[in-house]
Amino acid sequence: MPILGEIAAAAAARLQGCNPATVITGVAPLSSAEPGQLSFLTHSRYRPFLATTRAAAVILAPADAVDCPAPALVAANPQIAYARAAALFEPAPETRRGVHPTAWVSPTAQVAVDAWIGPHCTVEAGAIIEAGVIIGPNCVIGEQALLGVGTRLVAQVTICHRARLGQRVLVHPGAVIGSDGFGLALDDDGRWLKIPQLGSVQIGDDVEVGANTSIDRGALEDTIIENGVKLDNQIQVAHNVQIGAHSALAGCVGIAGSARIGQHCRLGGGVGVAGHLEIADRVQITGMSLVAQSITQPGAYSSGLTVEPNRVWNKISARLRRLDELFRRLTALEQILNHRHSPQASLQDHKD
Amino acid sequence: MPILGEIAAAAAARLQGCNPATVITGVAPLSSAEPGQLSFLTHSRYRPFLATTRAAAVILAPADAVDCPAPALVAANPQIAYARAAALFEPAPETRRGVHPTAWVSPTAQVAVDAWIGPHCTVEAGAIIEAGVIIGPNCVIGEQALLGVGTRLVAQVTICHRARLGQRVLVHPGAVIGSDGFGLALDDDGRWLKIPQLGSVQIGDDVEVGANTSIDRGALEDTIIENGVKLDNQIQVAHNVQIGAHSALAGCVGIAGSARIGQHCRLGGGVGVAGHLEIADRVQITGMSLVAQSITQPGAYSSGLTVEPNRVWNKISARLRRLDELFRRLTALEQILNHRHSPQASLQDHKD
Amino acid sequence: MPILGEIAAAAAARLQGCNPATVITGVAPLSSAEPGQLSFLTHSRYRPFLATTRAAAVILAPADAVDCPAPALVAANPQIAYARAAALFEPAPETRRGVHPTAWVSPTAQVAVDAWIGPHCTVEAGAIIEAGVIIGPNCVIGEQALLGVGTRLVAQVTICHRARLGQRVLVHPGAVIGSDGFGLALDDDGRWLKIPQLGSVQIGDDVEVGANTSIDRGALEDTIIENGVKLDNQIQVAHNVQIGAHSALAGCVGIAGSARIGQHCRLGGGVGVAGHLEIADRVQITGMSLVAQSITQPGAYSSGLTVEPNRVWNKISARLRRLDELFRRLTALEQILNHRHSPQASLQDHKD
Repeated sequence: MPILGEIAAAAAARLQGCNPATVITGVAPLSSAEPGQLSFLTHSRYRPFLATTRAAAVILAPADAVDCPAPALVAANPQIAYARAAALFEPAPETRRGVHPTAWVSPTAQVAVDAWIGPHCTVEAGAIIEAGVIIGPNCVIGEQALLGVGTRLVAQVTICHRARLGQRVLVHPGAVIGSDGFGLALDDDGRWLKIPQLGSVQIGDDVEVGANTSIDRGALEDTIIENGVKLDNQIQVAHNVQIGAHSALAGCVGIAGSARIGQHCRLGGGVGVAGHLEIADRVQITGMSLVAQSITQPGAYSSGLTVEPNRVWNKISARLRRLDELFRRLTALEQILNHRHSPQASLQDHKD
Repeated sequence: MPILGEIAAAAAARLQGCNPATVITGVAPLSSAEPGQLSFLTHSRYRPFLATTRAAAVILAPADAVDCPAPALVAANPQIAYARAAALFEPAPETRRGVHPTAWVSPTAQVAVDAWIGPHCTVEAGAIIEAGVIIGPNCVIGEQALLGVGTRLVAQVTICHRARLGQRVLVHPGAVIGSDGFGLALDDDGRWLKIPQLGSVQIGDDVEVGANTSIDRGALEDTIIENGVKLDNQIQVAHNVQIGAHSALAGCVGIAGSARIGQHCRLGGGVGVAGHLEIADRVQITGMSLVAQSITQPGAYSSGLTVEPNRVWNKISARLRRLDELFRRLTALEQILNHRHSPQASLQDHKD
Repeated sequence: MPILGEIAAAAAARLQGCNPATVITGVAPLSSAEPGQLSFLTHSRYRPFLATTRAAAVILAPADAVDCPAPALVAANPQIAYARAAALFEPAPETRRGVHPTAWVSPTAQVAVDAWIGPHCTVEAGAIIEAGVIIGPNCVIGEQALLGVGTRLVAQVTICHRARLGQRVLVHPGAVIGSDGFGLALDDDGRWLKIPQLGSVQIGDDVEVGANTSIDRGALEDTIIENGVKLDNQIQVAHNVQIGAHSALAGCVGIAGSARIGQHCRLGGGVGVAGHLEIADRVQITGMSLVAQSITQPGAYSSGLTVEPNRVWNKISARLRRLDELFRRLTALEQILNHRHSPQASLQDHKD
């Protein structure tokens, strides 16, 4: 178990009022932390808890460190400091190397000597598994797929043929990378003919892919996920989508084919993005919104409506359907009134 | 095959006009039931079918039993009675015990003697598999995970490290329980640093988890699914969510981090729930609605809009974007009219 | 590698200005095609590229072939021609036959001699695997399931007991076919009792099922997916749904129980369809719309709202909640004005 001095070093934080030799046994919220545990203050709203917390030390910002009654680890960006400190308490990473006896690895696959291929994995012909890669149980790596240095597939992940993942990519269970795009041609009888999906998927470094998320391969060119992109669970990324570096997409987002999302974007849960459009850099979309045209300016965008009691909502919804009528009725009134309001009109009016 | 008397006993139903010794060969809808089959009437709307059904017996409510022309199994709650009767016609449950020769079980995992671990399963170190657990093919059980008495994983399920499932939990294929929450800290360069997800998932007794549903582990404390919760397919449950006992969530629901859903709630398909809010007990949300603030009172809530022909919808949608203008124009009219309508104003008016 | 003459034959296209003996090395977009590659023009908008493309031949429509400066493959339906031509460039299909040594196949399963069962697959008792079926790695085939001639499961697919797939069905990774429907009965204490799901799933010929899509088995009768239906990724199909032939559903669609969708329909991404309703043939639904009542006429329907900047949207959203008030205020104004506007009213008016 780490001591406070080590944690401070890892978190690039300054110790205030605490002994660097204190052994820290775990991490806990301010209100429930026990002696020996590390805690954190990420919002000033919770400052009152500083007076009563039993935590051995609290990670906080310089502004909150002034007159802080609790022992503190002071950091310019407490969230980053916390992330670094907490990493010291994660279960030890896999240290196994080699291929589990129940895995099947094609003789033409290349597996680095210090990589780990877990139970019941299948690694197909020509796949390349680079140094330090950890493949958890029951994963499938397709032909000629590439997993870059230090990449980790947690379990039950499918990487289809020729998909290429960069370094330190983390893929959660049930994710599918490189499935066929939804490419169909309509014949003269109204039947669908499959358009072969000849492209693949390129995933950059430090990307995270959530549980049960799927990323389709390109129709002809590749689907591209740039460095540092973070994808939550249950996301659908269609063929030939591009997601710019350091963008983060929350759960259940769906992105249609050939959409291009900029860098440093944030999409809330359940957002839908139509195909063949572009979203500029640094755009934020509120959850459950629909993007159906390109967005050219950075900023925050929404189209979601939040719940009302049914009785209220039914009325709103019914009125909404009569919105066109409403505009017409309003315009009619305006015409009558403008008519009256102009001097001549008024005269006319007074005559009748 | 069961006889009617056994079915009546299992369903706590009263026989009316039928022979308890009749052998029942299966279950079918009223209109298509053949002689020897059991049927049911769950809505009075279908009563006319009672006169013509060929079913050997029909499960129905006392009110529908009056003058019922068909042989009947009368039950206060026909849906519950049907559920119990139909259970007699399910394929015999697995009676296998032990570990399939193709499964891999860590030597430090504890597996009850009457549990079953199917083909190609992986059970990691320290996992605990209690009595009567049935693990179907190709499942992964992470380190120190716990499956309570009588729990069943159908196939291809992933239970991540330290997740704890109660008794008689049923998990459908592709579900992932205990994947990392989507916890990220933004550094000064706009890059995301992963916040370790140190919590886990606790699932109560008699919970059902649908196909391809994912439930993330907590950031620090646990994600909690209480007893009797029923989750349909393709649901996303983010880190530190709490779902109260006996709530039922339909397919494609997405719940953001730290949301707390009460007991006996029902969420329709595709509902989105934002993070860090609370939904009271006995709240019902219509499908495809968005909950973005806490709901403190029981009742039914909605925010979904239903389709119109494009021509109509495009007009509504365009008008909606001018709603603010509409309010202003209306207010302007009101000011003119109120002005005129007051006696002095009218006088003024008449002077010009 | 195929020559142009072969491609023209496969695509039922006419050669114009090119040598049928030219060897074609691959497929590429007009703007990036290199000599020796095949390209295509699916929209006249891109015609200017014809003058500069280096492609060995371009698939295009007769109208675009007039005065075409590039060598061309002229086809009445260029999309269909392209799909057929591109198929020649797909990686060679699996030619393996038999059962991989790491797969487990029940002795009572029937497997055609020329079928392939990949690594770590599980094939349960009584399953029938017909001729030419290809089952990729880590799939699970439940008891008495049926895979028709030429069907292919890519990897990590789960086919539950008794589900029946037709011929040439293609199922992508993570898909689940035949999981239990979400059937629940409420007891008098507000607890859910599972209703056994005794039906199954029938899937026709030439159906495609996307990655991580789930299709539930019927409660009593079967869930039915007719011939030629194309389902994208992350779709939820509930119990007893019927999807008519040649309909195509984009990613993240959710369909509630017992909904019936017609033939030749197209549903955009994220569309939600409520239960127990019918959608006529040849209906198109725009992405992220909600269908809550039956649709009886073919045509295009929508209910999605697209994003605005937050500042604008917040105003619209607030105004929307006051829509009922707006109608009342408008009606009040109309009454005042109609009152005044009618001759008698005007007289009255002038008197005060």
